[in-house]
Amino acid sequence: ESIKRQESTDPLDPYSGEPSRHPALQINSLKPFNAEPPASVLADNYITPSAIFFKRNHLPVPKVDPETYRLEIEGLPGGVVSVTLSELKSRFPKHTITATLQCAGNRRSEMNKVKQVKGLNWGIAAISNATWSGASLREVLLHYGFTPEVAINAKHIQFEGLDKDVTGTAYGASINLNKALSEEGDVLLAYEMNGEDLPPDHGYPVRVVVPGVVGARNVKWLGRIVVSHEESKSHWQQNDYKGFSPGTDWDTVDFKSAPAIQELPIQSAITHPAEGSSVERGDEEVTIKGYAWSGGGREVVRVDVSVDGGNTWHVAKLHSSDLGRNPAPGRAWAWKLWEIDVPLPDGAQELEIVCKAVDNSYNTQPDTVGPIWNLRGVLSNAWHRVKVKVKDDQK
Amino acid sequence: ESIKRQESTDPLDPYSGEPSRHPALQINSLKPFNAEPPASVLADNYITPSAIFFKRNHLPVPKVDPETYRLEIEGLPGGVVSVTLSELKSRFPKHTITATLQCAGNRRSEMNKVKQVKGLNWGIAAISNATWSGASLREVLLHYGFTPEVAINAKHIQFEGLDKDVTGTAYGASINLNKALSEEGDVLLAYEMNGEDLPPDHGYPVRVVVPGVVGARNVKWLGRIVVSHEESKSHWQQNDYKGFSPGTDWDTVDFKSAPAIQELPIQSAITHPAEGSSVERGDEEVTIKGYAWSGGGREVVRVDVSVDGGNTWHVAKLHSSDLGRNPAPGRAWAWKLWEIDVPLPDGAQELEIVCKAVDNSYNTQPDTVGPIWNLRGVLSNAWHRVKVKVKDDQK
Ligand SMILES: [Mo]
Ligand SMILES: [Mo]
Repeated sequence: ESIKRQESTDPLDPYSGEPSRHPALQINSLKPFNAEPPASVLADNYITPSAIFFKRNHLPVPKVDPETYRLEIEGLPGGVVSVTLSELKSRFPKHTITATLQCAGNRRSEMNKVKQVKGLNWGIAAISNATWSGASLREVLLHYGFTPEVAINAKHIQFEGLDKDVTGTAYGASINLNKALSEEGDVLLAYEMNGEDLPPDHGYPVRVVVPGVVGARNVKWLGRIVVSHEESKSHWQQNDYKGFSPGTDWDTVDFKSAPAIQELPIQSAITHPAEGSSVERGDEEVTIKGYAWSGGGREVVRVDVSVDGGNTWHVAKLHSSDLGRNPAPGRAWAWKLWEIDVPLPDGAQELEIVCKAVDNSYNTQPDTVGPIWNLRGVLSNAWHRVKVKVKDDQK
Repeated sequence: ESIKRQESTDPLDPYSGEPSRHPALQINSLKPFNAEPPASVLADNYITPSAIFFKRNHLPVPKVDPETYRLEIEGLPGGVVSVTLSELKSRFPKHTITATLQCAGNRRSEMNKVKQVKGLNWGIAAISNATWSGASLREVLLHYGFTPEVAINAKHIQFEGLDKDVTGTAYGASINLNKALSEEGDVLLAYEMNGEDLPPDHGYPVRVVVPGVVGARNVKWLGRIVVSHEESKSHWQQNDYKGFSPGTDWDTVDFKSAPAIQELPIQSAITHPAEGSSVERGDEEVTIKGYAWSGGGREVVRVDVSVDGGNTWHVAKLHSSDLGRNPAPGRAWAWKLWEIDVPLPDGAQELEIVCKAVDNSYNTQPDTVGPIWNLRGVLSNAWHRVKVKVKDDQK
């Protein structure tokens, strides 16, 4: 039914040209389109297939003609530069990274259970992992005239999408200049996702991939880059995507008092078993699976799992790519999937399964949601908890 | 009495030549000398006076003659280099940074209350803040022949102290090469602390200051630097200063399974009021003070304070240096002190004061100690909790 509703052909509807989507996606909002894969399949693949990679659109998907597409770059000494898609592909080496993107609102639904927040009611799957290929933003900026002198004043790189609201205002965001300029930053002007052209929902023909940084700064349908002394003036940079104390409400909030979210904190969640499911006592153990990831290129080094609500802990087995290579320090952009078989505690009728991850800065997740609750429901990274029943065997 | 005991003159005692220390220090171990300032004075100064800066020695303090001192550098293409103190001071520009150092065992006493751990029973003051001046390690390595080709194999920089145990084994540690080589890493071969020669307890004549990284890698009495493909083989790098799951005990621990601690996680603690003290109900509010810091150059952006055990939260006022300048992104090496006046809740007989900090990656502290407990008692960064009584006024 929701598929049908997407295929509106009303020419006055700015959403009439939206692409078709995979039927398994769980839709949080149709216009703009926001959806996540079922949690149960999220950890089936180390690389998330593009069709079920979570979709987080703020505005209608723009239709972009690759022939007339231009990426404008402003704020460099030589003035405005206009780059075609084929120039971007031919003038610069193609780099490929594997990077996990996560929406700032991932796991917001757990905050909603504490107290209502403002935002899409994401489950645990507003996070996915893909390979991204494209030009290095650093190399593009250096090619078009960036010099160390520019950095004396410029501190930010602003991005503007080709997606626009009814007033013509485009989606926008910015990142720190040093992230964009660092060789170890690995920021890409990506034109491929998982080895193919970017799908329309993921920014065709070009998006910026800022690994280790919140999804909201990974601007899709990238139209403009501005090297600037200030952050993006967009709503999403200034008055959204910031964290606050649990005591801050809509009457008292001062958006200027908090920094725009860039690097995300340590995160993990249980994808199997599902909340409310059951395990057989005769199986003697329960297999638990999930994902773990941290922002800023910090590598996940351990995932602790409990089946008794956090009283006793077991260490899960981690796996990353098939290649088995260790990422360079500070460049662990991709998640780890994890798995563990835990013995069923004698006589337990119910298990409270809990996971928490640790990254190589030894940051860890907070125990409970309440004390990190915030009015926008972002940064929801408390221990993930799933309750399952232990069923006595049918004799 | 402890002062007297320090002044042993027994020539067979390797600790007979130890410097005299400030009488206010709270001693955790005399030989080797380990001591912290009283928590009540820790946050009185943004820059901790050197005399009360926490002391963490692993071995006797070596007596080093500045005239014959040599810093050896190995692993560069030109072979071993030997640098005098005056060469270090005259050949390289003097850089100054303000950086907080924290012992991995800071707040270990709170873990001991959960279950006994192995290590010195530090309170909340095994952390201090100073200005450090010296040569840039990056510039020294480049001067003596480091080239990008060296980095093809070399991944670590090892440090060896001039402090030795009875078998002649020196204290040692290592850091990642990219931290040492990055301009933004700010690693110093420091010969001054707070504007004066390093005191003997802090590494005279030269220590390495690795801002954002655990104290244990900030090797004092630095004698040797080795550019290497591997980490330091020292006990302290290989079999100590690593974090484990609460379920890991001395029978099951595999030190190879965990990374050596480098960047430390987000931390904060309450320095005023003291545990067990009282406030007057007639004062109507309680003034609470403390410190907050995070590893990896991540800036503390908020400290939340509760007087009801974490049910409701207030945002503290942060202050850093007198200059009021913001640190560059990723280079917030120094702590923030914080303060807040919180109204006394009606009728409360006792306050459970709690603090937790948030850094600019939006990492936050875990709620409780038990789930981060580990057999070495390191990385103790749960919410800090202090109980005080509310006294009814004497009429
Ligand atoms: Mo997002
Ligand atoms: Mo330490």
